[in-house]
Amino acid sequence: MSNKRILSGMRPTGKLHIGHYTGALENWVNHQNATVPDGGRRYDTFFLVADYHSLTTSLDTTDIDTNTIDMVTDWLAAGIDPEKSPIFRQSRVKQHTELFLVFSMLITASRLERNPTLKDQVRDLNMETLTYGHLGYPVLQAADILLYKGNTVPVGEDQIPHVEITREIARRFNNQYPLGDGSGVFEEPEPKITRFARLLGLDGKAKMSKSLGNTILLSDGPDDIMQKMRKAVTDTGKIRKNDPGHPEVCTVFSYHERFSPADTVAAIEQDCRSGALGCVDCKKMCSAAISRELQPLHEQRKIYAERPDMVRDILIDGEERARHVAESTMQEVRGAMKLG
Amino acid sequence: MSNKRILSGMRPTGKLHIGHYTGALENWVNHQNATVPDGGRRYDTFFLVADYHSLTTSLDTTDIDTNTIDMVTDWLAAGIDPEKSPIFRQSRVKQHTELFLVFSMLITASRLERNPTLKDQVRDLNMETLTYGHLGYPVLQAADILLYKGNTVPVGEDQIPHVEITREIARRFNNQYPLGDGSGVFEEPEPKITRFARLLGLDGKAKMSKSLGNTILLSDGPDDIMQKMRKAVTDTGKIRKNDPGHPEVCTVFSYHERFSPADTVAAIEQDCRSGALGCVDCKKMCSAAISRELQPLHEQRKIYAERPDMVRDILIDGEERARHVAESTMQEVRGAMKLG
Ligand code: SF4
Ligand code: SF4
Repeated sequence: MSNKRILSGMRPTGKLHIGHYTGALENWVNHQNATVPDGGRRYDTFFLVADYHSLTTSLDTTDIDTNTIDMVTDWLAAGIDPEKSPIFRQSRVKQHTELFLVFSMLITASRLERNPTLKDQVRDLNMETLTYGHLGYPVLQAADILLYKGNTVPVGEDQIPHVEITREIARRFNNQYPLGDGSGVFEEPEPKITRFARLLGLDGKAKMSKSLGNTILLSDGPDDIMQKMRKAVTDTGKIRKNDPGHPEVCTVFSYHERFSPADTVAAIEQDCRSGALGCVDCKKMCSAAISRELQPLHEQRKIYAERPDMVRDILIDGEERARHVAESTMQEVRGAMKLG
Repeated sequence: MSNKRILSGMRPTGKLHIGHYTGALENWVNHQNATVPDGGRRYDTFFLVADYHSLTTSLDTTDIDTNTIDMVTDWLAAGIDPEKSPIFRQSRVKQHTELFLVFSMLITASRLERNPTLKDQVRDLNMETLTYGHLGYPVLQAADILLYKGNTVPVGEDQIPHVEITREIARRFNNQYPLGDGSGVFEEPEPKITRFARLLGLDGKAKMSKSLGNTILLSDGPDDIMQKMRKAVTDTGKIRKNDPGHPEVCTVFSYHERFSPADTVAAIEQDCRSGALGCVDCKKMCSAAISRELQPLHEQRKIYAERPDMVRDILIDGEERARHVAESTMQEVRGAMKLG
């Protein structure tokens, strides 16, 4: 195994928004396309539709198929290249559940109960209603990563405890079931601290999220974007065009910082503060900047959105390739465990 | 599905002892061979080597393969017929882990923590060391049963809580993922209260168990049995041949009750009490009775013990047949869940 391997995944939530793009998808594409000095790829990338994970928070699967196709269409639009990277549904590669079961024996229930991220998730939930599967999701995540011998895990600071669980499980497996030469089946994956650029919601909330209805979708055209931008929260103190504003509290300005060129951002900041720029014009510019960035994505998206069967075929092909890698890992696992 | 279905399983502990026979295996064979008035079989029987379950209490798999072959050899010797009943290893039928994962979302962690059988098991264990997989073993058991649409579960009184968990999970799956006609994928299996004749250990302990070293193996020949019988605990008050004894406190007598004909048992009881029968002779008779019962089993056993590859082939064939049934269930499961 020469290249480093990265497994990235998302739950199938349907059409993605620009927050998903800046927060994850853009990094995924960068990892996929990163090269080493001789021109080869730096990473082997695997992209997972984490449909089993989505059951931990909602059992309703009515729209899971549509949501999967919509989401993968956006992945492809954003530049995930199915030739380079297998794209696959977790539920179609049985080896995920197989390794999950094996790993479930290598970690205590109380260790999982102390998982800080879980504690956050169930803070509002009643702990009595926490399902057994939900408690075990870091175990499933460990299986997802290690099944593909993922050795680099791009994470935000807050997700380091998760990678720690994966490392613990890998270590425990290697100690319990060493190979003949004393080495282990798994490498302990290294967290790669990555800045995930979060986008504010249109309503100024800390997170863009479909359930809050404060998103701009990757599939939104220029008119949709302009329409949504009208409702975006700005500096509430700037009422008339010529009122001086405070870009640092303005949602729209935060989008400019991400989507407009640096000199434009500087000009907007100055003109907002001086009152030379009104919010209506500023929003038009912002919409245009976002539309400009999304345009190549839209062209690419059209190809797939009109051909859902092609997306399905890409998944089926990715699943076959994923299964191949996964089964080879499971053979090593079963061999080390003498399960034959 | 016309016949009732029964899934029975054991952890691969190696060569079985006569307590396994009277406690389970004999019932298994009876279920397998039970007929209905038209001469057809009453049950479709499936026999599971529960190797994943054995990981819940010990991670050491050094001898798991040998133990599996030895155990299955005893099953075959006892009359499990691989033509009638698929015999298979849990770890070779991935669908067990797949359904385990799905079911893990349908039961709360706290419900599993309240499982009375688990509480017994961890009474001596430190609850801190309980693995996540161990906590979930009734979920894996539910998957084992329902994967084969088991609708009858032979159980002792004490195991009813387990069947209740399987029933709960089946019910919850059916409610959450109903079929088009409103029915469900699973039938709630019925517990079938069965008297499992427990045998005392040779040392008089409540249970015959390999770890206590107080067993007579199914594979023991007449000499081995006589040898072991010598050490069997009798009425400790009966020291000389002619001392009157109390059969009701005697381990050897409990074996007679199971292995000797009723009139012999009556005569032994009388002669023990009167002092006409000495323990040495009584033990000889007991050894002979056990050997007599095991003789057909030994003849059958020889065939397989000399051909471990045949046992392996039986497993491989059973696994193929089990996988076929299991995959058909999983297709219904995925269909109902719209996981496609
Ligand atoms: S002018 Fe632009 S940056 Fe300033 S408050 Fe209005 S929208 Fe925000
Ligand atoms: S005579 Fe037989 S039944 Fe009586 S105490 Fe001795 S071994 Fe037991």
